[in-house]
Amino acid sequence: MVSAAVMPRPGAAVELRRFPAPRPAPGGAVLETVMSEVCGTDVHLHHGRLAGVPYPIIPGHVSCGRILETGGPLADLDGRPLEPGRLVTFFDVFGTCGACWHCLVAKAATRCPHRRVYGITTGADEGLLGGWAERIELRPGVRMLPLPDGLEPEDFMGGGCGLPTGLHAIERAGVALGDTVVVQGSGPVGLNAAVFAQLSGALRVLVLGAPAARLEAARRLGAEDVLDVEAEPDPAARARWVRERTSGRGADVVVEASGVAAAVREGLEMVRDGGRYVVVGQYTDAGEVLLNPHVHVNRRHAAVLGCWGFEYTHLHRGLALMARHRDRFRWRELISREYRLADAGRALADMAARTVIKAAIRPAP
Amino acid sequence: MVSAAVMPRPGAAVELRRFPAPRPAPGGAVLETVMSEVCGTDVHLHHGRLAGVPYPIIPGHVSCGRILETGGPLADLDGRPLEPGRLVTFFDVFGTCGACWHCLVAKAATRCPHRRVYGITTGADEGLLGGWAERIELRPGVRMLPLPDGLEPEDFMGGGCGLPTGLHAIERAGVALGDTVVVQGSGPVGLNAAVFAQLSGALRVLVLGAPAARLEAARRLGAEDVLDVEAEPDPAARARWVRERTSGRGADVVVEASGVAAAVREGLEMVRDGGRYVVVGQYTDAGEVLLNPHVHVNRRHAAVLGCWGFEYTHLHRGLALMARHRDRFRWRELISREYRLADAGRALADMAARTVIKAAIRPAP
Amino acid sequence: MVSAAVMPRPGAAVELRRFPAPRPAPGGAVLETVMSEVCGTDVHLHHGRLAGVPYPIIPGHVSCGRILETGGPLADLDGRPLEPGRLVTFFDVFGTCGACWHCLVAKAATRCPHRRVYGITTGADEGLLGGWAERIELRPGVRMLPLPDGLEPEDFMGGGCGLPTGLHAIERAGVALGDTVVVQGSGPVGLNAAVFAQLSGALRVLVLGAPAARLEAARRLGAEDVLDVEAEPDPAARARWVRERTSGRGADVVVEASGVAAAVREGLEMVRDGGRYVVVGQYTDAGEVLLNPHVHVNRRHAAVLGCWGFEYTHLHRGLALMARHRDRFRWRELISREYRLADAGRALADMAARTVIKAAIRPAP
Amino acid sequence: MVSAAVMPRPGAAVELRRFPAPRPAPGGAVLETVMSEVCGTDVHLHHGRLAGVPYPIIPGHVSCGRILETGGPLADLDGRPLEPGRLVTFFDVFGTCGACWHCLVAKAATRCPHRRVYGITTGADEGLLGGWAERIELRPGVRMLPLPDGLEPEDFMGGGCGLPTGLHAIERAGVALGDTVVVQGSGPVGLNAAVFAQLSGALRVLVLGAPAARLEAARRLGAEDVLDVEAEPDPAARARWVRERTSGRGADVVVEASGVAAAVREGLEMVRDGGRYVVVGQYTDAGEVLLNPHVHVNRRHAAVLGCWGFEYTHLHRGLALMARHRDRFRWRELISREYRLADAGRALADMAARTVIKAAIRPAP
Repeated sequence: MVSAAVMPRPGAAVELRRFPAPRPAPGGAVLETVMSEVCGTDVHLHHGRLAGVPYPIIPGHVSCGRILETGGPLADLDGRPLEPGRLVTFFDVFGTCGACWHCLVAKAATRCPHRRVYGITTGADEGLLGGWAERIELRPGVRMLPLPDGLEPEDFMGGGCGLPTGLHAIERAGVALGDTVVVQGSGPVGLNAAVFAQLSGALRVLVLGAPAARLEAARRLGAEDVLDVEAEPDPAARARWVRERTSGRGADVVVEASGVAAAVREGLEMVRDGGRYVVVGQYTDAGEVLLNPHVHVNRRHAAVLGCWGFEYTHLHRGLALMARHRDRFRWRELISREYRLADAGRALADMAARTVIKAAIRPAP
Repeated sequence: MVSAAVMPRPGAAVELRRFPAPRPAPGGAVLETVMSEVCGTDVHLHHGRLAGVPYPIIPGHVSCGRILETGGPLADLDGRPLEPGRLVTFFDVFGTCGACWHCLVAKAATRCPHRRVYGITTGADEGLLGGWAERIELRPGVRMLPLPDGLEPEDFMGGGCGLPTGLHAIERAGVALGDTVVVQGSGPVGLNAAVFAQLSGALRVLVLGAPAARLEAARRLGAEDVLDVEAEPDPAARARWVRERTSGRGADVVVEASGVAAAVREGLEMVRDGGRYVVVGQYTDAGEVLLNPHVHVNRRHAAVLGCWGFEYTHLHRGLALMARHRDRFRWRELISREYRLADAGRALADMAARTVIKAAIRPAP
Repeated sequence: MVSAAVMPRPGAAVELRRFPAPRPAPGGAVLETVMSEVCGTDVHLHHGRLAGVPYPIIPGHVSCGRILETGGPLADLDGRPLEPGRLVTFFDVFGTCGACWHCLVAKAATRCPHRRVYGITTGADEGLLGGWAERIELRPGVRMLPLPDGLEPEDFMGGGCGLPTGLHAIERAGVALGDTVVVQGSGPVGLNAAVFAQLSGALRVLVLGAPAARLEAARRLGAEDVLDVEAEPDPAARARWVRERTSGRGADVVVEASGVAAAVREGLEMVRDGGRYVVVGQYTDAGEVLLNPHVHVNRRHAAVLGCWGFEYTHLHRGLALMARHRDRFRWRELISREYRLADAGRALADMAARTVIKAAIRPAP
Repeated sequence: MVSAAVMPRPGAAVELRRFPAPRPAPGGAVLETVMSEVCGTDVHLHHGRLAGVPYPIIPGHVSCGRILETGGPLADLDGRPLEPGRLVTFFDVFGTCGACWHCLVAKAATRCPHRRVYGITTGADEGLLGGWAERIELRPGVRMLPLPDGLEPEDFMGGGCGLPTGLHAIERAGVALGDTVVVQGSGPVGLNAAVFAQLSGALRVLVLGAPAARLEAARRLGAEDVLDVEAEPDPAARARWVRERTSGRGADVVVEASGVAAAVREGLEMVRDGGRYVVVGQYTDAGEVLLNPHVHVNRRHAAVLGCWGFEYTHLHRGLALMARHRDRFRWRELISREYRLADAGRALADMAARTVIKAAIRPAP
């Protein structure tokens, strides 16, 4: 028997439960969990703000573990064997059908209706399909990625799900060499967006967020300047702060990673004429916002780009870039605190209160 | 002396005034106006809804005329001489500097701060710089385009400024072969968007608008189906109408050409996941709209694309395509009525009341 | 027992052989073949010019049939049931893994090493996996597409594999509204490229090819002008012919669909500065060509774009567009002659001699 | 009177000549030259390998100087005054008309037929229009860029014309986050391409070139690995070297910056299926190359992209990025040696012999 932290239903306390030790299906695998994370989505799950979640669930969608057993020989995309003992992460999305209109015609793979996600759309009665558990059961077809040499679980989990999400947002933005990029929000997604903006050729990155510890992290991750939105509550003043740093024109790219609906109006005021605005932080319904289509979109000739989820390619490339740049961008320092499985509820509360940047769960007994 | 219809100030009646017959500057030209138009912008000008307009003005930004005199030898882009007697139109935008940050770095030419537009940002005391006049004065550098063989002024003015605007909107949309395109609005811009959507590879075009005469025009221009928004005032029912025609998924592309702020929310409900939404109809400030960034942009992975003005290339290519397809798309039939210069006020009133699709001004005495 | 025409090995005569009547696997289906085709690839197969072909094979990669039996309930991408009696075609590619580096990271799906193609990379001892047979066995996962209402097998097979190939080539070209497109080659791929160029917004299409019957077909399909390359053997004169029709500048887009290596040099002479050149006709190794990188690529700022195979989306959208435009573009007239299964060898010879535009096989007894 | 080094005609020795001290035209300026460069183009000019050069000429197209006098008040793109004493560079291209088909319709600005370039298409009898002179005369409309704070002439000239050329090539390549980029050629353009590939998100950059000093520079500029093409003369072995470093697949992007025609065939062997190949090094006619369209382009689904010249935006953004990253990439170290004006011929010889990476000319007396 192994332990897992279970979220029984929205609002209820997280409980430790015991499950039978899993065995891999043919083509699948079982991981001994080394580290998982508590991300903003987990807070949303606890608040019941996502539709269609099959509570009770084992949260933890992006995780890191050691292969314990495989259901036959497995290999990664480069053909390297994935054998017991290997430290890996895995792409948390599975079930994307490759056979529906979204997959085949629109090529909008993150919108495939068959898509499922570990720790979010998987129920605890289906098995150990979340990272807040001593073991994770990888269904056949779930894609594992070995941690590159020199990368430790702490590095990878310092990025966590924000790594591929931030990369996807920046890819969607189409950063040009020399662009000025503004990031609204200094949580894990915003911080990773700040990193990938720089890796994509941004000349400068400006971050607006809170609290101070997150803004200090933004600076360490290369942001040229930061603005504490708690110290400056006036949206007009914040937009002015951006314009003062962009010859009055606004930024080439603004990435919304705040989770606050009002940020969208505010952010559009920061975009230059002909610029791009990526909305990646509205993962759950955070309410409505009043916009002026003439001022914010039409006359500005702006592109407002929604960015939903991420694909395997984002995780694959994000992981490789992390290995290459781990000294320049010290992702591991984003983990403010580690928690045992029994303290998952506390981790969730700290994340909700934003007293940590990233909260890591270490399920090992 | 020649006559021109002058809009003295917002709200005031249009007046006929006399001006000295103009002579061309070196590199410029004078046209004898054959036909000009009354477009939605002129109605906005009359309502005083555009900022920075130097009233009194001579309206009429897209026009057609015969070259009366040139200030030295002139040629079009293919090197063909532009000589007196030639029937031409001209690109109504001039003064784009080619030397500012927007022109040189951002390549957002329609946002150059030096850009000026005939009939909109030119005052009557600067000269005959609008089409509601017997003569039009073309400043040096204004680009003339000969009407292609077989194309008559009635054809071209049936397209009018909606031709390059509709083309630009569809170019911005990035229509893929086989796309379903929805157009919100059945005025000249919407109708031209419907045409260029088909020319760009759309499988089907659906148009929502009013009144009936415009929807009939939409059908004649190839729309597969139309919805009268006056007969169906419920936005949810309109979105449902689109979804019923798109396997429940929504359209690949939706073009807003309505001028109504609320249309933006409604239109976003019609876009498929991963689809594109072009905002071209909010040329003036038509108010605000409440959007849900999670539902309308982020989860939908939508691209919302503002489209401002048009460039020379859009007029050049639109004109050539019109010459090629004038039998398939009978633009000239969009002109509901022609007016003498003295009746410009009436033309404006008819346009405002939407009792005409396009109102043409014939300034010839 | 059912009959199939088998190509035993390169150079050997096509033979009629008897096979056991197939039954569908679960999730698969059996079709009664209505019509298949002989395309340029089949000629290459007969000449042994493709690597890795598991002779003996049953050729015929794009076909049309009636569902005889399914291995359980099946549906198309819009959820419509695929039941016995339904007239369908199918995407001839199967086995694309969705799990390798090409599929997941590069998103170069036509280069997945696991990709297999009916009638080309399938051996006769694996089953009835080619269209030159009374029955076709559809493996589980092979995607069927019902012929849209009003479309007959003759229409669809008039397009055949050239339909999705031509669409893919034009999509790759990125045709802009108003472009002039030149097509080198007047075989089925070239003719379909000419059609889709027009559907994508080309102002004009010019076709160079032979023999006369194919050029007449090109004209009927909307080509503005054609040049018989047998009548004009001088490559310089051919390029001049294009430049004379493009103000001396060359075409915006040139599509190579000739299968002749020398055409690539010739075609690059026809591209305007900053234009695009798509190479789709070099499906097999047709030899080498001498190019000048300075003249043909660098100074011209040209984009030379290889185009390999096609994806499901191209067939899906091509089929829908064909249904919409079958009166404007009469694909069915491209079928010069129909052959019984026993005459497949003759069909192949006629195709090789280019005495037909498209040769159709009707396997029904 | 001031001195300038003049190239009288191809093959003739460079001579020092005296010119009257220039005065600025209205809207123009005169610079006191601080530093100019000898680039590969100058070697080509000396060998007479460019068409249409109006010998005698004053070479030196990218330069750095101090404003001596302006013809009235001037400002840069951000509105900052350009006054005497200011250290600037300038965009060497002028005369782009903004009014022809290439400028307006095709938006292929580097192919405008009116485009002229300092030090290349300007004759010595037109004035001091090249950097190998004590003074440079800036015609009205020539765009000056102040050197950003902290950037010295040595930094900027270490990049020289390779800076905007390398940036343009990489922009043309469309580097994705995580790409592997191969650069063929280790001259100034290749080295700058290696830098901008990294700034654009490349995971790794591999450089093939010679001699050893240039490869060492490549390593210092961040190349992960380098191959000396003089030590490995076998093209097949070089392509293998790339494939061994890319899981056998080839690189996502290969940039040709070698100036050798044969490199194009070799480089295409290094590109992965679906990858991109940029040809930027064939600035002059370096001869022909035998390619296999099937193998190198069609089956590979490759994009081969010519890259001609650069635009203002590339210089503007390159300069800003250089200021930001001058510690990470030490451009100034690329200047192997400085020469007085009188030694320009020697500089040219050293550049031709590749005994220097960059040769800088210091015209100050």
